[in-house]
Amino acid sequence: MTKSALQIARAAYQPKLPKALASGAVKAVEGAATQSVADQEAIKALFPNTYGMPLITFEAGEAVKLPAMNVGVILSGGQAPGGHNVISGLFDGIKKLNPENKLYGFILGPGGLVDHNYMELTADIIDEYRNTGGFDIIGSGRTKLESESQFEKGFEIIKKLGIKALVIIGGDDSNTNACVLAEYYAAKKYGVQVIGCPKTIDGDLKNDMIETSFGFDTACKTYAEVIGNIQRDCNSARKYWHFIKLMGRSASHIALECALQVQPNVCIISEEVETKDMSLDDVVTYIAKVVADRAAQGHNFGTVLIPEGLVEFIPAMKRLISELNDFLATNAEEFSHIKKSHQRDYIISKLTPENSAIYASLPEGVARQLSLDRDPHGNVQVSLIETEKLLSEMVATKLAAWKEEGKYVGKFAAQHHFFGYEGRCAAPSNFDADYCYSLGYTASMLIANGKTGYMSSVRNTTAPAAEWIAGGVPITMMMNMERRHGEMKPVIQKALVKLDGAPFKAFASQRDRWAVETDYVYPGPIQYFGPTEVCDEPTKTLQLEQGK
Amino acid sequence: MTKSALQIARAAYQPKLPKALASGAVKAVEGAATQSVADQEAIKALFPNTYGMPLITFEAGEAVKLPAMNVGVILSGGQAPGGHNVISGLFDGIKKLNPENKLYGFILGPGGLVDHNYMELTADIIDEYRNTGGFDIIGSGRTKLESESQFEKGFEIIKKLGIKALVIIGGDDSNTNACVLAEYYAAKKYGVQVIGCPKTIDGDLKNDMIETSFGFDTACKTYAEVIGNIQRDCNSARKYWHFIKLMGRSASHIALECALQVQPNVCIISEEVETKDMSLDDVVTYIAKVVADRAAQGHNFGTVLIPEGLVEFIPAMKRLISELNDFLATNAEEFSHIKKSHQRDYIISKLTPENSAIYASLPEGVARQLSLDRDPHGNVQVSLIETEKLLSEMVATKLAAWKEEGKYVGKFAAQHHFFGYEGRCAAPSNFDADYCYSLGYTASMLIANGKTGYMSSVRNTTAPAAEWIAGGVPITMMMNMERRHGEMKPVIQKALVKLDGAPFKAFASQRDRWAVETDYVYPGPIQYFGPTEVCDEPTKTLQLEQGK
Repeated sequence: MTKSALQIARAAYQPKLPKALASGAVKAVEGAATQSVADQEAIKALFPNTYGMPLITFEAGEAVKLPAMNVGVILSGGQAPGGHNVISGLFDGIKKLNPENKLYGFILGPGGLVDHNYMELTADIIDEYRNTGGFDIIGSGRTKLESESQFEKGFEIIKKLGIKALVIIGGDDSNTNACVLAEYYAAKKYGVQVIGCPKTIDGDLKNDMIETSFGFDTACKTYAEVIGNIQRDCNSARKYWHFIKLMGRSASHIALECALQVQPNVCIISEEVETKDMSLDDVVTYIAKVVADRAAQGHNFGTVLIPEGLVEFIPAMKRLISELNDFLATNAEEFSHIKKSHQRDYIISKLTPENSAIYASLPEGVARQLSLDRDPHGNVQVSLIETEKLLSEMVATKLAAWKEEGKYVGKFAAQHHFFGYEGRCAAPSNFDADYCYSLGYTASMLIANGKTGYMSSVRNTTAPAAEWIAGGVPITMMMNMERRHGEMKPVIQKALVKLDGAPFKAFASQRDRWAVETDYVYPGPIQYFGPTEVCDEPTKTLQLEQGK
Repeated sequence: MTKSALQIARAAYQPKLPKALASGAVKAVEGAATQSVADQEAIKALFPNTYGMPLITFEAGEAVKLPAMNVGVILSGGQAPGGHNVISGLFDGIKKLNPENKLYGFILGPGGLVDHNYMELTADIIDEYRNTGGFDIIGSGRTKLESESQFEKGFEIIKKLGIKALVIIGGDDSNTNACVLAEYYAAKKYGVQVIGCPKTIDGDLKNDMIETSFGFDTACKTYAEVIGNIQRDCNSARKYWHFIKLMGRSASHIALECALQVQPNVCIISEEVETKDMSLDDVVTYIAKVVADRAAQGHNFGTVLIPEGLVEFIPAMKRLISELNDFLATNAEEFSHIKKSHQRDYIISKLTPENSAIYASLPEGVARQLSLDRDPHGNVQVSLIETEKLLSEMVATKLAAWKEEGKYVGKFAAQHHFFGYEGRCAAPSNFDADYCYSLGYTASMLIANGKTGYMSSVRNTTAPAAEWIAGGVPITMMMNMERRHGEMKPVIQKALVKLDGAPFKAFASQRDRWAVETDYVYPGPIQYFGPTEVCDEPTKTLQLEQGK
């Protein structure tokens, strides 16, 4: 591996730990028994061995010498900055417990467990990856651990390697599956513990006990850096509207956090669009209105932040897509004989009036994509829609109409951006480096204390790291029952942006001013070595949620 | 202006100056008389007052009290990191000469001079912009100062404001025009000096006396940061080929520098494609070959860097576009009656066999764009082509054919990125902050020494800043005669990537290894406060060119 100067300098960084963990020996203090956030009876019935367990908090304690044990670790799903530090924290934690302890990494995600694809993670390897971004130490994958045959295949290699506990680093679905696996191994009395760690740049795995998922801090700061640079360009050239789409299909936390960091002219929050039952035209009108208001002041430039999942949150679009899926499925044969150039009119003539009107309002390219690019099940692929271009085209059309009516005087030229891969593997910020290392270290202590079905938890995260509170939360506590693929399933509740939450309220109270004024903030790149107010601030979301 | 924590911390940075300038008082040492790089007689005839002047080097000297003077400054063309530091260096330089001196900024580029749109830049204003990115202090613009009527309009406001000298911060064209203006004012004996400063992220304004243009360092490092992050993601997920287009239409310095920083699997250099007379198919085949070779090792992922101007460098594409422009111009009437769905076949049937074959090989979307999206003069808009998508589509097509023939076994899925606006207004790196401040300060000394038609020059830039050599270079020295819009014009020679230059040779000697191995480097974000090897290294291009 050829290393950059920053990587070499950063390797020496010693992540900070909560005081209780840094003291060397810990004791687990049990709180009250817990219950799931909803559907208590159903969840309890499904998790008889892992339901109702107490919260755990670690405090400084007496060192106890435990017999040697082996631990396995899995990275699951999309990359998030800090994954390597979870693993190095876990490694240092188990080595502290007993230098004989071994850590095995399963390769390319949960599939590595099922396929018995693994490697031992030794000190030499771990040292190459401390404080680095990416999941390349063992790779990640999207195989879902769901079936008993997978659990049994996994147990074969677990037995063979003498693994006492498995740590699964993943998002809400992966942690749900970690708990199902914990329950299964407990029910079977296999003596294998399973611990989860909260990962996702999307920020949608959080609740009272899990303040934030790791990676959100670094990813948002990286996006805010480049958005800030674009805003400075925008404000210098004064001739473009930049439409910037941000990763995050199921929640708008990234867009909201970036908006709080950079103060754009417009930021759309999917959850608000859904709650207010806004149509696509409502969203377009809102943006066009801001463009027109700024143009009236002579400002033909601006920035618009758009969450990736927007289209799927617009109720009317959901209805259109649903009818389109049904229609194309039932009329596949007939549709295949329609000439390409006539397909659009054909669809318009066949849909219900409401959906027909929306379909007709879509730019040609998007309409074509919706009818042609379907997934293997024949469904419309909403994720392929370039929402940033869709919106800017529709805004341009609306402005042209307003110009005709004399309601708009200005020039409108757009640039488009989509940021996702740029931030998922950035080198972790000090916050994520410390938080991840603490999560991994905490996981080792949960294992030492014989826990299973717990998620590693580190709280009080807006305080200095020494004051953070490490512990464990029963995963069942975060669950409710939801319909997934037509079946009721126990799942961890996904945290969407709350319209009555402090971050959204802070945004909503300022957005009208940001729309007309040009009060862009330029956060600049993540710094690792400078003054603490530059290097160590957590996200605005976290600060606002904690009342800071 | 709401400021970020980094912006506040960074405002306190005092840029470093060459020792001679830092000493407070300087003397100008004149070197030998100069001549233009080519076409000496023609250039001399066009610039009788500004041709053949000596090189200037500043050394520490005696302070001389000069009468108060006013200076004007203009930002011309695209943004580049450090523009604000050129202005603050210029400001501090003239204030040091005499605190009574005043600096006026012309607003939104050269147009501000012609339209008499200006503001006085006072200490309060300057202090808000030190070490920041962007050109927003006075804005920039693309008006070209070319005609005598513009020069005379400019002189009106220059006279009114008592301006002794004008500093034009711009790229090769803007500096050419600065010299034409210097010559004009000298010929008219208006007593107005004009000094240029070398700006452009593209890196194509450089020569023996101008080692680098400002902004190249910061912009490339910002692009390398996000490309590095994408590479780490690529190497973690192991399932995508990322096609990454980089700004820079007329030269590939940015792509080359980024390649040297991140070690991608593929980087295309336009100048090489042109020199070797490679066809579009040759480029596609080269990339597809790397994809196939990696797939044979089980690596269905990788990164490809593409310079924005590539298509315009492919000789065969230039010929196609030229024929297409002629054909569409002479057959406009007939073409307008051809049905959209038949236009492609129509064009294929009409072009010469060579061009027809290339046109037929283009993906449908690109072919449509070439025939439909034309500029106001009816010309094909090459810059609208999404080269990154064009190449990945054509690579996919070629791989599919090779799969049929059993020559390729693998999966190919692509992601696309285009980076430009992300880096043009980044906060300047230490290098650019120091270099720009020194260029501005040097400009003030050239003014104090009565020089005109000079470009501010700071050399020996791979040494610590104290050892940098400040001075001035007659702009005519960098000129030759070139055909522009059908006329022979005196212009500064554009610096393209030299295939026998050290940066290209370093790249070429390693690229075959980078293609098959995965030896990505992850430079991480620009650091301002850390160890010197992290914060102060100049670009690889500059180091290699200086034999470091």
